[in-house]
Amino acid sequence: MFRTHTCGELNLSNVNETVTLSGWVSVLRDKGFMIWIDLRDRYGITQLIIDEERSEKALLDAARTLGREFVIQVTGKVIERASKNPNIPTGEIEILVEKLEILNESKLPPFTIEDKTDGGEELRMQYRYLDIRRNPVKNKLIFRHNVAQEVRKYLSDQGFIEVETPVLIKSTPEGARDFVVPSRMNPGQFYALPQSPQTFKQLMMVGGLDRYFQIVKCFRDEDLRADRQPEFTQIDCEMAFVEQEDILNIFEGLTKYLLKSIHNIDIEKFPRMTYDEAMRRYGNDKPDIRFGMEFHELDDLARDKGFDVFDKEELIVGICAPTLNSYTRKDIDRLLEWVQRPQIGARGFVWVRVNEDGTFKSSADKFYSEEHLASWAERMGAQKGDLMIVMAGKANDTRKQLSALRMELAERLELRKPDEFAPLWVVDFPLLEWDEESGRYHAMHHPFTSPKPEDISKLKSAPGEVRANAYDLVLNGNEIGGGSIRIYDRELQSQMFELLGFTAEQAQEQFGFLMNAFQYGAPPHGGIAFGFDRLVSILDGSETIRDYIAFPKNNSGRDVMIDAPAAIDQTQLDELEISLVKK
Amino acid sequence: MFRTHTCGELNLSNVNETVTLSGWVSVLRDKGFMIWIDLRDRYGITQLIIDEERSEKALLDAARTLGREFVIQVTGKVIERASKNPNIPTGEIEILVEKLEILNESKLPPFTIEDKTDGGEELRMQYRYLDIRRNPVKNKLIFRHNVAQEVRKYLSDQGFIEVETPVLIKSTPEGARDFVVPSRMNPGQFYALPQSPQTFKQLMMVGGLDRYFQIVKCFRDEDLRADRQPEFTQIDCEMAFVEQEDILNIFEGLTKYLLKSIHNIDIEKFPRMTYDEAMRRYGNDKPDIRFGMEFHELDDLARDKGFDVFDKEELIVGICAPTLNSYTRKDIDRLLEWVQRPQIGARGFVWVRVNEDGTFKSSADKFYSEEHLASWAERMGAQKGDLMIVMAGKANDTRKQLSALRMELAERLELRKPDEFAPLWVVDFPLLEWDEESGRYHAMHHPFTSPKPEDISKLKSAPGEVRANAYDLVLNGNEIGGGSIRIYDRELQSQMFELLGFTAEQAQEQFGFLMNAFQYGAPPHGGIAFGFDRLVSILDGSETIRDYIAFPKNNSGRDVMIDAPAAIDQTQLDELEISLVKK
Repeated sequence: MFRTHTCGELNLSNVNETVTLSGWVSVLRDKGFMIWIDLRDRYGITQLIIDEERSEKALLDAARTLGREFVIQVTGKVIERASKNPNIPTGEIEILVEKLEILNESKLPPFTIEDKTDGGEELRMQYRYLDIRRNPVKNKLIFRHNVAQEVRKYLSDQGFIEVETPVLIKSTPEGARDFVVPSRMNPGQFYALPQSPQTFKQLMMVGGLDRYFQIVKCFRDEDLRADRQPEFTQIDCEMAFVEQEDILNIFEGLTKYLLKSIHNIDIEKFPRMTYDEAMRRYGNDKPDIRFGMEFHELDDLARDKGFDVFDKEELIVGICAPTLNSYTRKDIDRLLEWVQRPQIGARGFVWVRVNEDGTFKSSADKFYSEEHLASWAERMGAQKGDLMIVMAGKANDTRKQLSALRMELAERLELRKPDEFAPLWVVDFPLLEWDEESGRYHAMHHPFTSPKPEDISKLKSAPGEVRANAYDLVLNGNEIGGGSIRIYDRELQSQMFELLGFTAEQAQEQFGFLMNAFQYGAPPHGGIAFGFDRLVSILDGSETIRDYIAFPKNNSGRDVMIDAPAAIDQTQLDELEISLVKK
Repeated sequence: MFRTHTCGELNLSNVNETVTLSGWVSVLRDKGFMIWIDLRDRYGITQLIIDEERSEKALLDAARTLGREFVIQVTGKVIERASKNPNIPTGEIEILVEKLEILNESKLPPFTIEDKTDGGEELRMQYRYLDIRRNPVKNKLIFRHNVAQEVRKYLSDQGFIEVETPVLIKSTPEGARDFVVPSRMNPGQFYALPQSPQTFKQLMMVGGLDRYFQIVKCFRDEDLRADRQPEFTQIDCEMAFVEQEDILNIFEGLTKYLLKSIHNIDIEKFPRMTYDEAMRRYGNDKPDIRFGMEFHELDDLARDKGFDVFDKEELIVGICAPTLNSYTRKDIDRLLEWVQRPQIGARGFVWVRVNEDGTFKSSADKFYSEEHLASWAERMGAQKGDLMIVMAGKANDTRKQLSALRMELAERLELRKPDEFAPLWVVDFPLLEWDEESGRYHAMHHPFTSPKPEDISKLKSAPGEVRANAYDLVLNGNEIGGGSIRIYDRELQSQMFELLGFTAEQAQEQFGFLMNAFQYGAPPHGGIAFGFDRLVSILDGSETIRDYIAFPKNNSGRDVMIDAPAAIDQTQLDELEISLVKK
């Protein structure tokens, strides 16, 4: 037996007991006549003591051979500490070591195993097995486990059953790019890894399973942006015989349950906002509503005042940044540069200081009188000491740019509090979005999303105006879940594929099994999927998904620890009947 | 709202309530003046009634348009049934329908949606979404969900944390064949799908996570035998600072917990048997101990009696089949043919009838006297009416053949009772097995398994005799779990790779990250993995794994429902920089 206790559990009630502990040497302090060791395991740290007075000399000698991260086993007596450490649960005791065994040695780790380490991200990823010895990383993985357990508990209690859907499925060129897997037994053919179990969960609804969920790995072969992983985890859910309202209630319930069980936070009823309203008020379909700085349209107040830059544009819209009159001229210039970066792409903005004496000072003083600016301030509810920022341009672009600025300012003003949680349902998404490049409509959610019944008549005449029974759950400015009521009528589904530019043959080849299934009594159904990696990080007050993944990949899709992907043997290629194309 | 209740919950306490139900038309009986409909959903069946006396004529007309598996929504009053059905929870009531709406029509299904269907396996797999409407299939999926929940509960309560390991990893030619995934971002390189998260779980132990588990999909590109799936699910577990005994206790606990929570069966302490003993007593390292028919070696009794067929063989071994003296001469001949089939490959056997009068009759009467046969009977504990069957040959082959016969006879005698559970630990497996084909040793479990410390000295001199700290959990003749204490010493691991024929370079290239990790304070650790698909089926009293998988693949690795794998577009191949090799 390697231990009688863990390093996190001994306290004054154990004094005089003889115990055995195992763990890693975290810190060793050698005062000559006395040696202290902080022994660490997953559960905590326990102080070991060896001294000239009470210990055999051989023990002191042995202790002096120990290095950081050596794995040792000790037996000794629990004694009360002279100087107690109130910051750790074991801080009132220490172990007077009687027996010490080195279980394994350790080279000096490439970075320190401490909460604040000296290791950079690259190095920590390469030695991820050492990184996860650190509390911040370990605790994030435990947090993730706890959230997963709570999700499963809630959904199971609600009658959902978790069903595993296949990982080796069929490639569908619609949507993002698939990872594919050559089939040795079926040469020339490939499986694809699922981007989501979408069609399987719909088939399960046709199959009468009624309430399904799964915490499941999904795959997308996309060029990786920061915090996008080629493999990611979803909480995938589907329900039959439901309307949108039923789904919102169940998953609002899930989110409330998680906030309560994890943070002991009660939230009454989640606010709801249509897509149009979210875009108008926040320029964003996933607004962070923990803070204000809402958009205010100024077309009626700022147009036709001789300011050519505004006059010719589709939309004039501004936000009021609280307390930001504190910005110097230089600060504002830098902010201007920030919005002009290619990532944001704004041409610029007009700023208006709201001075302490109630006067205004703006970058367009030539065109707008004190009175004009006062009318802007009134609309925006600007207070003394605030800074108004106004942009103009094409409506969609300008909203997007101003939204980016709003989020940036909120970061700077520390308005995005990690321990505050503001969920929001965004509903009534457009069914389709026009894609300039391909010159056709794309499904905004996916091709299985149902149009609102009252908008179906517009499918042919004005497809762009058709709204969908689709909804997103937004938490603190992040989309944590999205879903829709599905089409369950074969005819409507065919019409939808046609609208999306599928020929009848393509639709049959790729989704024939679903279309066939719809002929055999498909019930009304709908569902939602949560990005689990993101949900976990947001619930933990972070937005860095990678930290919550045990073995993440870097931005080139590489696992730098195991060095994958890698070349494979020619025999493997031969068996698969494929060859590499030299470029 | 589509329903106020499900089809499984209404009873006499709901009489006179007006309810709305949705579901599938399971059965429709039209007596002319009265129509009954069995409405089905996941939760049960509720009888609907429409009659000339109490219902509007339009309703009867509408009901007559319904076909099997139509999806309907009805509103009506709960009334007490005249003739009750005690076999279903809703059998005391029916719904007098007031409103009927067809939500979706259905073509006639290709097989009947009933517990005993007329559909063959092929057809049912093609229309799996209809198959899972049937109770036996649906209930198996719900059972699987329940087992998964219980497993997670037990392990979480024991301090295990579930960590998701990557699916896109690196190919290692050792072991079974990998599925590979070409990397578009790293042309010419491939990911592999994991055959198990083995190295990752060991790295997590190096990382101090202490207790890890995961219910996880694994992948093996093998030619499929019956009931082998290219993707399958494991309960994967690992613990640090443990000896074999600790692991056996924890996972004996898990199995007990499952038997108790699922079947309310208490099992005291699981028996243990060494590999050698299991082979000697049952000819099998996963013996079904629900019944006897143990092996008895007869070398000392049956050799040198002039029977040449036995005399020259390595092993003479028999079993006693209870009551099987009832077999006619013809039955025995057929049994002889059965063991001579190529799948079994035995040359034959000697049979000995134990007659009701205590005399014996054998197929080798010429060589063995009544007295000889009595000594055999005594050793085997044969009773009047039994049949002794004795084989001879090379020890290993003969044991395997006799084991197959033992299992076959147990099936015929109905000794393998599905509601009886007999777990067994098999321990002390050999570390290595000699592979004739490659002329070298292979790891019996895997290359990370630790030899027993007392046998390490034999690693060089007599590798075949080295026993491993490896163990299997056997349930009802099936290996449901297997694991080992791992090597955590870099030197020993190198030695092991060498023994298995790896060059130092190969070992470094394939497992370098693990070898490196062992330099930084690897703790003693070990683990186990359960085949979850098999565990679930055995716990449910079945051995047909495929029934417990929602969307299984056939023996060619195909999903016949979605028709995967399939050809992919040339543009996909081009992006991946691979091409098909025409053979």
